[in-house]
Amino acid sequence: MTYCVGILTETGLVMMADTRTNAGLDNIATFRKLYLFGEEGKSFFALATAGNLAFTQTVVSVLREGLERENGRMEKLTDQRSMFRAAQFVGEVIRHVYETDGPALEQIGASLDVSMLLGGQINGRSLRLFMLYKAGNFIEATADTPYLQIGEHKYGKPILDRAVNFRSDLYDALKLGLISMDSTMRSNLGVGLPIDLIVLKRDALKPEVEHRIEAGEPYFHDLRERWSAALRKAHNDIPAPPYGKGA
Amino acid sequence: MTYCVGILTETGLVMMADTRTNAGLDNIATFRKLYLFGEEGKSFFALATAGNLAFTQTVVSVLREGLERENGRMEKLTDQRSMFRAAQFVGEVIRHVYETDGPALEQIGASLDVSMLLGGQINGRSLRLFMLYKAGNFIEATADTPYLQIGEHKYGKPILDRAVNFRSDLYDALKLGLISMDSTMRSNLGVGLPIDLIVLKRDALKPEVEHRIEAGEPYFHDLRERWSAALRKAHNDIPAPPYGKGA
Repeated sequence: MTYCVGILTETGLVMMADTRTNAGLDNIATFRKLYLFGEEGKSFFALATAGNLAFTQTVVSVLREGLERENGRMEKLTDQRSMFRAAQFVGEVIRHVYETDGPALEQIGASLDVSMLLGGQINGRSLRLFMLYKAGNFIEATADTPYLQIGEHKYGKPILDRAVNFRSDLYDALKLGLISMDSTMRSNLGVGLPIDLIVLKRDALKPEVEHRIEAGEPYFHDLRERWSAALRKAHNDIPAPPYGKGA
Repeated sequence: MTYCVGILTETGLVMMADTRTNAGLDNIATFRKLYLFGEEGKSFFALATAGNLAFTQTVVSVLREGLERENGRMEKLTDQRSMFRAAQFVGEVIRHVYETDGPALEQIGASLDVSMLLGGQINGRSLRLFMLYKAGNFIEATADTPYLQIGEHKYGKPILDRAVNFRSDLYDALKLGLISMDSTMRSNLGVGLPIDLIVLKRDALKPEVEHRIEAGEPYFHDLRERWSAALRKAHNDIPAPPYGKGA
C-alpha cells in the first residue's frame, strides 16, 4: 500500500508520501514515492505516486527523459508552460505507459490501479495541486477542498475533514498531514516510515523544507505519542451515554 | 453504505448499526440493520447486517421463520444451543440464500457483498461475538481484538485501535463505538442517522439498553461537538514541526 497527501493553502503547498512497498506480505521494501522536478528559478514540481511500482517508476522516467514527439523532440515535464499543461502531460504519459506496458501486465493479472498527486508552480503562474487517475484524467484542489489523497486514504481522512482548510497555517497543515499519516500507519501496516515531505511557499519555486522522517525521529515520535494521548483524553472528557446504567 | 460495530468486553457486549441505505445516490432510505432475536430468559441474539438489502432481509426472514429441514421441521436461529452453532446456522442460511437468489442477482449485476455481526448469549453458555463473511464462514472477537466491524469500517477504526480493549468499561465502549460511528458518518454520507444500538450485560440475556439515536438527540449532538473540538485542540497542542520556518 501507499499513502500520500497534498494540502494546498493560501500561502503554500505541503506534500508527503510514505515509502513502503509490498509485493505480497512477505516482500516489503522501501522506495521513494515523492519525486521532485524543476529548474532553479523557473519551476518546481512534486509528484507523489501510488500503485504498481514498475508502472509508476516508468512514468517518472518518461517524465524526466521525455516523451518522443513526431518530430523526434523529447518533451519533458519541465518543458511545460503551466501547471494545467503539466497535469495534462503527466496524464498523457500515464496513458502512454498503459498503451505500451498495460496489455502484458493485464495478461499476468498485475494490478494496474495507479494514481498520482502533482503539485507545484511555474514562474509567474499559479501554485496548483492536482490528483491524476489511471485514465490520465485529473481533478484540482480548490479553496473548498484544499487537500487531495491517494492510496490508503480513509484512515487519515477524518482529521483532515475536521481541521484542514485553505486558510490553515502552512506548518499547521504539515502537522495535520503528519497526524493523518500517523493514523494511516497505525491502521495499515502496508504504509510505513520513512516519510518524505516537502513544504513549498507560494512563489518560492524551491521547497522551504525537503525532509525525510526516519524511524525514531524525536519530533514524529513525540507527535504520535501526543496524538494518541490526546485521543484517549478526548474520549474520557465526553460524558457517559445517558442510556441505561451508564446514565 | 452501512457501518456496524460490535465490541465485546469483560462485562458485556455493545452493538450498533446505522440505518441508511442507498440504491444509487438518488435513492436514499432508512432501514433497520440491527435485528434482535431471543426468548425471554433463554437466549438473546443481535444481528447487524451490511450489503444488498434484499439479500440481508431475506436472511433475517429465514432466521426467524426457519430453514426447512428434510423432515419438514423448520429450524430457527432461536433453536440453536450455542453461539457457535448459531453462527454456523447464520452462515448456512447465507449460503442457502446465495444458492436460491444468487444466480439471478449476479445476472443483473447486483452486488452480492454481504457481511454480518452476530452477538449474544444462550442461557448457561458464553457471551460471544462473531463476524460472518459472504461465504458463510466467520471469525470471533477475542480479548486481543475485542471489536469487529462491517461495512464502511476504515474511517472509524483509528479510535477503536487506540482506545478499546477487553477491559474497557461497557459504557465507555459504547461511547467509543459512537465516536467511531461519528467519524464514519462525517466522512461517508452513505452512513447516517438514526443509529440503533444495544448494550447487553454478560449473563443478562436481555439488553440493558435498546435505543435508537434520532437526528437532533442532544447527547449524540454534544458527543459530536465535543469530539470535533477535542480533535482541533489536540492538534493545536502538538508543537509545530521543527523543519524550516516552522521551527
